[in-house]
Amino acid sequence: MADIIRRMKSADAGFDAALTALLNWEATTNPTVSNTVAGVLAAIRRDGDTALLGYTKQFDGVNADTAAELEIPQARLQAALLSIPTEVREALEKAAERIRSYHQHQRQESWSYTEADGTVLGQQITPLERVGLYVPGGKATYPSSVLMNAIPAKVAGVDELIMVSPTPKGFVNDMVLAAAAIAGVDRVFTIGGAQAVGALAYGTETIPKVDKIVGPGNIYVATAKRQVFGSVGLDMIAGPSEILVICDGKTDPDWIAMDLFSQAEHDEDAQSILLSPDADFLDAVEASIAKLLPTSARADIIRQSLSARGALVLVKDLDEAIALSNRIAPEHLELSFDNAQDCLPKIRHAGAIFMGRYTPEALGDYCAGPNHVLPTSGTARFSSPLGVYDFQKRSSIIGCSAAGAAELAKVASVLARGESLTAHARSAEYRFLPANDAGQESV
Amino acid sequence: MADIIRRMKSADAGFDAALTALLNWEATTNPTVSNTVAGVLAAIRRDGDTALLGYTKQFDGVNADTAAELEIPQARLQAALLSIPTEVREALEKAAERIRSYHQHQRQESWSYTEADGTVLGQQITPLERVGLYVPGGKATYPSSVLMNAIPAKVAGVDELIMVSPTPKGFVNDMVLAAAAIAGVDRVFTIGGAQAVGALAYGTETIPKVDKIVGPGNIYVATAKRQVFGSVGLDMIAGPSEILVICDGKTDPDWIAMDLFSQAEHDEDAQSILLSPDADFLDAVEASIAKLLPTSARADIIRQSLSARGALVLVKDLDEAIALSNRIAPEHLELSFDNAQDCLPKIRHAGAIFMGRYTPEALGDYCAGPNHVLPTSGTARFSSPLGVYDFQKRSSIIGCSAAGAAELAKVASVLARGESLTAHARSAEYRFLPANDAGQESV
Repeated sequence: MADIIRRMKSADAGFDAALTALLNWEATTNPTVSNTVAGVLAAIRRDGDTALLGYTKQFDGVNADTAAELEIPQARLQAALLSIPTEVREALEKAAERIRSYHQHQRQESWSYTEADGTVLGQQITPLERVGLYVPGGKATYPSSVLMNAIPAKVAGVDELIMVSPTPKGFVNDMVLAAAAIAGVDRVFTIGGAQAVGALAYGTETIPKVDKIVGPGNIYVATAKRQVFGSVGLDMIAGPSEILVICDGKTDPDWIAMDLFSQAEHDEDAQSILLSPDADFLDAVEASIAKLLPTSARADIIRQSLSARGALVLVKDLDEAIALSNRIAPEHLELSFDNAQDCLPKIRHAGAIFMGRYTPEALGDYCAGPNHVLPTSGTARFSSPLGVYDFQKRSSIIGCSAAGAAELAKVASVLARGESLTAHARSAEYRFLPANDAGQESV
Repeated sequence: MADIIRRMKSADAGFDAALTALLNWEATTNPTVSNTVAGVLAAIRRDGDTALLGYTKQFDGVNADTAAELEIPQARLQAALLSIPTEVREALEKAAERIRSYHQHQRQESWSYTEADGTVLGQQITPLERVGLYVPGGKATYPSSVLMNAIPAKVAGVDELIMVSPTPKGFVNDMVLAAAAIAGVDRVFTIGGAQAVGALAYGTETIPKVDKIVGPGNIYVATAKRQVFGSVGLDMIAGPSEILVICDGKTDPDWIAMDLFSQAEHDEDAQSILLSPDADFLDAVEASIAKLLPTSARADIIRQSLSARGALVLVKDLDEAIALSNRIAPEHLELSFDNAQDCLPKIRHAGAIFMGRYTPEALGDYCAGPNHVLPTSGTARFSSPLGVYDFQKRSSIIGCSAAGAAELAKVASVLARGESLTAHARSAEYRFLPANDAGQESV
């Protein structure tokens, strides 16, 4: 049988280059898609609802006479909540409760302080007013994604959260609507693709313009998001999902194999890597992979993903594994060994850190509490999980007393004149010089 | 004499449309620039130092045999600090101290909590490892910008802060080097343009690859930043600077005129708007503008800016002014009236809020403490001043006890099966089911 997943050793010559090649991922840009999307966005901006109705008919096969018909009323969301199996509803409610509870810890509060001369400095935190949430339609429709995107926005205090999701040929996913009801989504429209992104970014007669758009989507949605950036805020545009597992060799190899599968089953480009200092354990995991793969519903995708982008890597010790992890900056980092918490100070870059043998990534994907929208492709080096902070923004606060202004104005005047910005200097000088002395152009 | 600045009344028919037109700003993209930049970036990525040396010779007229010659040693920074006038050095030091003190309030700390069953949840905060700071060369070289960009990074704990700044024909600005010394910049290279952005984003043999690039630049720099986004984090790409002043009519009109000038003098596209309920006061400010303009060093730029994008607007009352401000979401909002602090809860969107008659924007630009890198063109609706938080990132922390995992795995299993992600479900189930019962593919 051909190897399902590659084996690597950190001690091998050429390991560094091989790892770099394995990790390499670049989003391809497609000029045809870019042009199509630009055309759709321009039409939405120009013709509003008329264009939106046209594209929704063309791309989703949904006929509507008015854009208002594309709104799903709150009563329908509540009906969906009652229509799904009790077990599923309870699981969604439990997950939502834990996600809400965790994210409440992320709320930032305004602060200020007063200096001796009475000058006040601070930072005012305010929620975004209106946010758009994109939810893909069709087969890859994930109610968990609704919870993970919507709840932080509502915890932040966003006034109005507008969800859009296409319903190709009219197919509506009740689990998604139920999740929207539980998360407190304010309005739902059955629109999708670049036209939905455009409607949210620019507003139409019916769809309100939002301040930020979040949520995953296909290449048309991602391209549209890139093109409207600036008019509107965005979450990150995700690459393929990845997991890095570090194991000391004492976790059940079936567990670890399945943890790797849980990432690989997302799509062929997903990446699952295991680091262990125990060669026998890597053999055991490889055997578990071979054993469990045929029992998996999504075996084809898992096989392709593990073959193209997976690896079982023999490392010298756990310290070397952690150093490699810091280089990889994984989206998901699973530390499958005892006392994993002691390692935290050594972890520099990771989207989410799963500690111990009883913390598979799948728990974090659904219900542990932290967000499952995480930085991919090494971007954990500079970015963070989606959070409440993505739906709040800050305003600096400065209130100078007359005495404070006199003191600061002297400094500002010197620096402004050093930069040849004399109006800046004079604006400052007015606050401390007698009128006749201020406003001179030379120092 | 022709009017220098337009007058508007909120009560006029057509005011809304006129205001929208006045605020309208769209960054133009230039395909020629995009292509040039793409070529430069590709060459830097492919040829590293060799390409960097070539472009630096071509664009800046600086000949160097090796890229190492383009580094300015720390001793040179210290020498610059001693070479500038004492008054300027002391002003820079005072400004730096206040900026540092304010930004220390923005540091975020890691947190975690333990649930009843022993499950640990939290968020680990870590600084970025390496950051690049772009500082424009030539005439528009602002030492204050070095302080505002560098200090938050160092307060965040960034390990290595690398400044790049072109030195056209070898011209080095000592104030900028002095500011770098005071701010604690770690390394300085005399490179600029798209080639400097490429070197920081991809790394060369000499220039280390960074995790994030911040700092202003011309259209080549801004275009290069857009093109490397994804490989590296970015600060915002700023539009023209703007100020909105709200005044009750009781501040010296010369002061307000000069506050408007201080924004207008930046460039022709800058925007200065005054809102007041006092028509006589608007007349007085208009007279001050006419009187002070001829005394201004940058009168031509100020005149063009006020004429193209400025306005004196008569409003019904201060409440209407604040409502308009929330619509505009200004970069700088000056509340030139008494007890301005009482209005803060009504302010939804603004980059920085300057309260009272003694707080001109110029103080915030240099030395009050808060950052002068602020969201422009209405993006204060969804973004924030540059801050320490831009140089820190978060990792979610999840550590389940065996009991906690059993509980969470049941929820995860139901939801994962609802999404047809059975490997997710089985990965969770292994943590609570006997081995033989886990890993079934059907619900």
